[in-house]
Amino acid sequence: MVWFRTLIRSSLINQPTKPRNLGLLEPPRLLSLTHFSTEPSSSPTSEVKENVDKQSGLPPTRAEEKPRVVVLGSGWAGCRFMKGIDTSIYDVVCVSPRNHMVFTPLLASTCVGTLEFRSVAEPIGRIQPAISREAGSYFFLANCTSVDVDKHVVTCKTVVDGVKTLEPWSFDVAYDKLVIALGAEASTFGIQGVMENAIFLREVYHAQEIRRKLLLNLMLSDVPGISFEEKNRLLHCVVVGGGPTGVEFSGELSDFIKSDVHHRYAHVKDHIRVTLIEATEILSSFDDRLRVYATKQLIKSGVRLVRGIVKDVKTQKLILSDGTEVPYGLLVWSTGVGPSKFVTSLDLPKSPGGRIGIDEWLRVPSAQDMYAIGDCSGFLESTGRPVLPALAQVAERQGKYLAEQLNKVGKAGGGRANCTEDVDVGSPFVYRHLGSMATIGRYKALVDLRQSKEAKGLSMAGFASWFIWRSAYLTRVVSWRNRFYVAINWATTFVFGRDISRI
Amino acid sequence: MVWFRTLIRSSLINQPTKPRNLGLLEPPRLLSLTHFSTEPSSSPTSEVKENVDKQSGLPPTRAEEKPRVVVLGSGWAGCRFMKGIDTSIYDVVCVSPRNHMVFTPLLASTCVGTLEFRSVAEPIGRIQPAISREAGSYFFLANCTSVDVDKHVVTCKTVVDGVKTLEPWSFDVAYDKLVIALGAEASTFGIQGVMENAIFLREVYHAQEIRRKLLLNLMLSDVPGISFEEKNRLLHCVVVGGGPTGVEFSGELSDFIKSDVHHRYAHVKDHIRVTLIEATEILSSFDDRLRVYATKQLIKSGVRLVRGIVKDVKTQKLILSDGTEVPYGLLVWSTGVGPSKFVTSLDLPKSPGGRIGIDEWLRVPSAQDMYAIGDCSGFLESTGRPVLPALAQVAERQGKYLAEQLNKVGKAGGGRANCTEDVDVGSPFVYRHLGSMATIGRYKALVDLRQSKEAKGLSMAGFASWFIWRSAYLTRVVSWRNRFYVAINWATTFVFGRDISRI
Repeated sequence: MVWFRTLIRSSLINQPTKPRNLGLLEPPRLLSLTHFSTEPSSSPTSEVKENVDKQSGLPPTRAEEKPRVVVLGSGWAGCRFMKGIDTSIYDVVCVSPRNHMVFTPLLASTCVGTLEFRSVAEPIGRIQPAISREAGSYFFLANCTSVDVDKHVVTCKTVVDGVKTLEPWSFDVAYDKLVIALGAEASTFGIQGVMENAIFLREVYHAQEIRRKLLLNLMLSDVPGISFEEKNRLLHCVVVGGGPTGVEFSGELSDFIKSDVHHRYAHVKDHIRVTLIEATEILSSFDDRLRVYATKQLIKSGVRLVRGIVKDVKTQKLILSDGTEVPYGLLVWSTGVGPSKFVTSLDLPKSPGGRIGIDEWLRVPSAQDMYAIGDCSGFLESTGRPVLPALAQVAERQGKYLAEQLNKVGKAGGGRANCTEDVDVGSPFVYRHLGSMATIGRYKALVDLRQSKEAKGLSMAGFASWFIWRSAYLTRVVSWRNRFYVAINWATTFVFGRDISRI
Repeated sequence: MVWFRTLIRSSLINQPTKPRNLGLLEPPRLLSLTHFSTEPSSSPTSEVKENVDKQSGLPPTRAEEKPRVVVLGSGWAGCRFMKGIDTSIYDVVCVSPRNHMVFTPLLASTCVGTLEFRSVAEPIGRIQPAISREAGSYFFLANCTSVDVDKHVVTCKTVVDGVKTLEPWSFDVAYDKLVIALGAEASTFGIQGVMENAIFLREVYHAQEIRRKLLLNLMLSDVPGISFEEKNRLLHCVVVGGGPTGVEFSGELSDFIKSDVHHRYAHVKDHIRVTLIEATEILSSFDDRLRVYATKQLIKSGVRLVRGIVKDVKTQKLILSDGTEVPYGLLVWSTGVGPSKFVTSLDLPKSPGGRIGIDEWLRVPSAQDMYAIGDCSGFLESTGRPVLPALAQVAERQGKYLAEQLNKVGKAGGGRANCTEDVDVGSPFVYRHLGSMATIGRYKALVDLRQSKEAKGLSMAGFASWFIWRSAYLTRVVSWRNRFYVAINWATTFVFGRDISRI
C-alpha cells in the first residue's frame, strides 16, 4: 500500500492544479461546468486503476519497512496495547468494527443522561495517533473473518453499517505479530427472545438505544388512550443480572427517576418502577457486608429486587422459571459475558470456558507470533493458572504488559514474523487484583480493595466511597479531553439536571 | 383526564403500601415472588380500567378548569409561544413528534462535531415547565392528523418511532385556542431520488446521520481493495443549495477538513472535496459586497462552487440539467422550504405560496380561535402585506407576539372557546427585520444589518463579524444550560479539535 500511496501522491503532485482546486471560478460569478468528474482528469492511468482494484490488502512487510503488528479489536486490551506499542519499531494496524474505545465503567451513566455519550468514547486515533498519520499504520473499520496461522494473514470484511450504496468487501492483512483482543459477547444462556427484545449494555449504541426507549416510554405513557396496564408496562424497567453493570444501571435509573422524572414527567412519576432480577445474589464478587449495604440502598431507592431465573423473553413480558410473568417496557440484559462465535470458531487450543488459550507470556503457544489478551483469552490449563475474570483492569494490564513485551522483542530484532526464537521474553505476566468498585446511586458506592473474595483488606461503602469512585474514574478516563468532558457533564447534571431531549 | 388522574392518585394513596414498595424484601436475602404484577394489586377496579381504555383524549374544558391552548409543533414559533404564555391563565398542551426545540442556526456545526447535538436541542419541558408538572398541561409525542374547526377538536396520532411492540393510536384533544406552528418541509422540487438519497439539515437526527456517514466514508475510503474512483466518490461531499444553511455547512465542512481530516485521516486527506451546487447565486439575500467576499472565502477554503440545476438524483451520483454527472458520497440538500403536506391538506384559506392564510393579528380568519405562526403561515393577500420569509426570527417574533396577545385576551376573560368577540385584540403584528448573519468557516462570518435588500445599513464581513456571530448566538441560545454547553463545546473544539468517534 505504501507504494500505491506514494504513486498517488506523486501523480497528484505532477498535476498542474490540485484536484481540490479544479473548477474554482472567479467570484462572484459561477459558471456551469461542462465537464464534471470527481477524479483528477490527468491521473491515474487506467493501468494503475486496475492495479488498485485488484490490490486488496496489505502484503507481508519487506525488509526496508517496519514490522507490522495487527491488533484485532478496540476495547480495553487492544487500546491499552496500541497506546503502549513503540511506533518507531512497529507499524500498527487495527481492525475493529468501531473506531473508538468505550470507557465501559461509565456507560451506565450515559443511559439516563448523567454523562454524555461522547464523554465515554475515545477515538482510537487519539489513543495511538500513528494510526491516522504514519504511512504504514492504519485503522480498518472491519471484522476479522479468518486467521491463517501459517501464512501469517488475517482476512477481514468491511463494516458498511446499513449504507445501501456499498457492498461489504473482503481484504487480507499480513502480520508480523498478531494481537487478538476481540473481547467477549453478552451471554444469553440460550434463552429465547433475549437477542430480539433485550438491550445489552456494552456499546455506546446500546446506551443510546436505552435512553431513547426510556424517554419514548415516558412520553407515550402520558398520551390519552393508553390503558392503565399498558402505562404500567411501558414504565416498568427490568434489569436482568445483578453484577456491577446491572446494579449500577439500576442505581442510575433510580437516581434519574428520583431527581428528573419526578420533576420533568410529573404526570407519570407514580407509574415508573425498576426491577432487578438475579438468579443468585447481587454483586456476588463483593464483600458480604458491602452486599448487604448495597441491597439496603437499592431497596431504599425504590428498586425492586427479585430472585428468579428467566426462562423465556417475549416482546412485552418475560417469564420466570416458576411461571411468573413480568411485563416490561424496557429490558436490559447484563448477565455476564462468554466467548464470541468467532473466537469459538478459531481452530486454536482453548482455556477452560472456551476462551483462546494462552501461556504465561500471553502467547498462543500453537501459533507463531500470535498473542491474545483481554476477555477473549484465558490461561491454558497446562499453565496451572486460573482463567482471569473478564474485567477491564485485567484487559488493560495485559495490553500494557504485551506492548512492553513486544517493544522489547522488537528492539532485540525479533519484530519480524518467525523471528522470536532467540529473543529473551522476560518475566511472565502476573495479575494483581486492585479491587472492585460499584456505584449504587444516590451518591453512594462500594469499594472493595481485597485481593480476592477470601482475602482480608479494606472494604467500604457510602458517600466517601462514591467520592473515591468518581475521582478514580476521573483520573482513569483515557484522555484529558474526556476527563474534562466527564467533569463538565457531572457538574452540569448537578446544576441543571439530566437532559431529557430525545434526539 | 384530570378526574382520571385524581382517581388514580387517590386509589394509590388508599393502598396500604405504595406500588413501588411492593416486593421489597429483607436484605440480603431475596425471595422469589409467587405473584408478580406491574399494577398495584388493590386498584383500580375493572370498571375504571374499561373507562380508561375507552377514554381517548382530552374533552372540552369545563368552567372550573383553565381554558386550554393547544400548540401544534415545537419549533421556533411554537416554543417561543409556549415560553411566553401565562400558565396561570391557560393550560398548555403541545403536540409534536419531537420533545425538544432545535436551535437551527447552529445545527450545521454539529454535523462535524464543532458542537455536540445536545447543545443545540432544548427540551420543551425546560422551555415551559408547566407542561411536565401542571395537572392540565401536557406534551404529547404525536402528529396532528386533522382539525375540526367547528367542534374545536384536533385529532392526533402517536409517534411510536420504530418500536415494534406498540401500534400507534389516535386520540382527540379539544381546544379553546389552537396555535398552528407546524413549520415547513424541505423542498425537493419534485426531483426524483432526493428524498431517498439526500440528507436535509433541519433536525438533530439529520445532523447525526450526516456525521455518521461522513466518518464512515472517511474510514471506508482507507480500506484496502477500494478503487480509486470509489474512494473519490465516497469522499466527495456535495451540498445542493447556496442559502445560509448550505453555505454554513460547506464552511463547517471545509474547516473540519482543514483542521481535523488533515490530522486524523492523513491517509485520505487529498481525496476529500466539497462541492456546493446552486442554480442562481449563493446567499442571494445578502449584500452584493458580502456575497463576493463569501464566494472568495469559500473558494479559498477549497469549496468548489458550481452553478447548475439538479435534474435527477441516483444512489451514487446526481445529474445536472446539462447532463453532467456528479458522483457523491454524501449529499446534503438545502434548497429552501415549502408548506408541508398536512398544511396543504387543511381546508383553510391560503396565503400566496400555499401557507395557512392569516390576518395581521396572526389569526386564521375563517376559523374561530385558531392562529397560525412561523413558517407554516403567511399573510393573506387581502391584508396587503407580503408573506414573511421562513426565518427563525420571524417565527420567534410571531410566537412572542401571539403569547402576549392571548395572555391579554385571557386576562380580559376571552380565553374560553368562542369567547373572543368582545375582547380588544390590540395592535397588529409588525415585523422589523433585524438583519442576517451567516458563518462561512475559518473564523469568518457575514453580518448584514440592513432591513431589506434595497435598504441602506451596516453590512460587514470577516473576523469581527464572526465574533459577533458567535456572541449573538451564544446570547440567543435558549437556556443557560445550552449557553454553557455551546461555550464549552467551542472551547474544547478549539483546544482538542473535533471529536471523530463514530457513535
